[in-house]
Amino acid sequence: MTFAATILTLYPEMFPGPLGLSLAGRALGEGRWSLDARNIRDFATDKHSTVDGTPAGGGAGMVLRPDILAAAIDSVPAGRPLLAMTPRGAPLTQARVRSLAEGPGVTILCGRFEGFDERIFGAREIEEVSIGDYILSGGEMGALVLLDACIRLLPGVMGAAYSGVDESFETGLLEYPQYTRPYEWEGRTIPEVLRSGDHARISAWRKHMAETETRLRRPDLWERHEGARVQSPSGARRTKKDA
Amino acid sequence: MTFAATILTLYPEMFPGPLGLSLAGRALGEGRWSLDARNIRDFATDKHSTVDGTPAGGGAGMVLRPDILAAAIDSVPAGRPLLAMTPRGAPLTQARVRSLAEGPGVTILCGRFEGFDERIFGAREIEEVSIGDYILSGGEMGALVLLDACIRLLPGVMGAAYSGVDESFETGLLEYPQYTRPYEWEGRTIPEVLRSGDHARISAWRKHMAETETRLRRPDLWERHEGARVQSPSGARRTKKDA
Repeated sequence: MTFAATILTLYPEMFPGPLGLSLAGRALGEGRWSLDARNIRDFATDKHSTVDGTPAGGGAGMVLRPDILAAAIDSVPAGRPLLAMTPRGAPLTQARVRSLAEGPGVTILCGRFEGFDERIFGAREIEEVSIGDYILSGGEMGALVLLDACIRLLPGVMGAAYSGVDESFETGLLEYPQYTRPYEWEGRTIPEVLRSGDHARISAWRKHMAETETRLRRPDLWERHEGARVQSPSGARRTKKDA
Repeated sequence: MTFAATILTLYPEMFPGPLGLSLAGRALGEGRWSLDARNIRDFATDKHSTVDGTPAGGGAGMVLRPDILAAAIDSVPAGRPLLAMTPRGAPLTQARVRSLAEGPGVTILCGRFEGFDERIFGAREIEEVSIGDYILSGGEMGALVLLDACIRLLPGVMGAAYSGVDESFETGLLEYPQYTRPYEWEGRTIPEVLRSGDHARISAWRKHMAETETRLRRPDLWERHEGARVQSPSGARRTKKDA
């Protein structure tokens, strides 16, 4: 099945952009996902192709008109989640990425200027998503990030060896440190345990390091992880340990 | 002064990508920022241009070699922050974006596969940054996001009317809802207060809405905002209210 992505944007030429290369580009060529970037401006109805207006009540910037946005949205076949990239949206999580990747695809509405006329969110079923607590010049960059995160999880995109379940966030922990050749570099060596060939010891060391890294770098993730472990016997949340 | 961005990547052709268009593209053309995307592979020393190796201790994927990474890093003139996009990095904030944008530029190290040999972080001064708690196919998408966020803040990139200080996260609050023409659409009208012409009332309504949106959608931001307000008399942190 092909994961179908439709992007509603004022800059369709930004797509596929970086998604046309490497892993995502290869998957696009293989038909594992499809891309349809539509220009919101094509849904304007006046001769100047107006898509926006000044903010009611005053202020800087321009606001995208609800009627034009609705026309663009209504042009896309239903049956797929409709997302809008907004700074006030729900922070994107790996769990949401995974559930989107398991579905039929996604339609993503990208804003520019001062954003969308608020009424569109009441009039259409739209899930507002944020990729992080910083401001971008538009929603396009967020759409690229969201698609990249989804595409790598589609069947056949990563090699068979990549289950993905060992990665940061999938287990609720950050990843353990990695090492490769050369054995010694600038006087620094690879930890002896990793050269021991003792898989149980290596696994224990990696688990310990992942826990330590998470506790030190991201106490917020660690707290959630510990909470999930405590709750898991009741089935509320599962960590790797319990899975 | 030009904001100088150097990207160390296995996919230099991903740059400028979407940053070559719209606001960032215009700013690039005007020389407000410069871009130098270098291929890490050019720093390989063997005839196969090897940049990575299998993980010490076993496991899927490939790890970027420390010696090759160091050669790439050492090729860039010092004097600019050196960032690596990693899932375990410090979550990117608008405050960090603003401080980077006020500096001379940035060098960004992008990983693929299973990431970087850990020793590089001990041997070079590298700031690890994450754009969010999800997994991407590589650091390139994160670098694009980080640059987009910085570039729009560079002098002259946004119009004079855009101070930026009213936006989400800059005040510690999400933005208030926006409206524009038409006045009535699908039976929904613009809130009357925004048509009152009473600037004090409009300003009070927007403040109230920004606070309500933040409290409902992002209790974590709201808690921090309230904490900052309490602390601000001692100068610890300032919110828009106090600025």
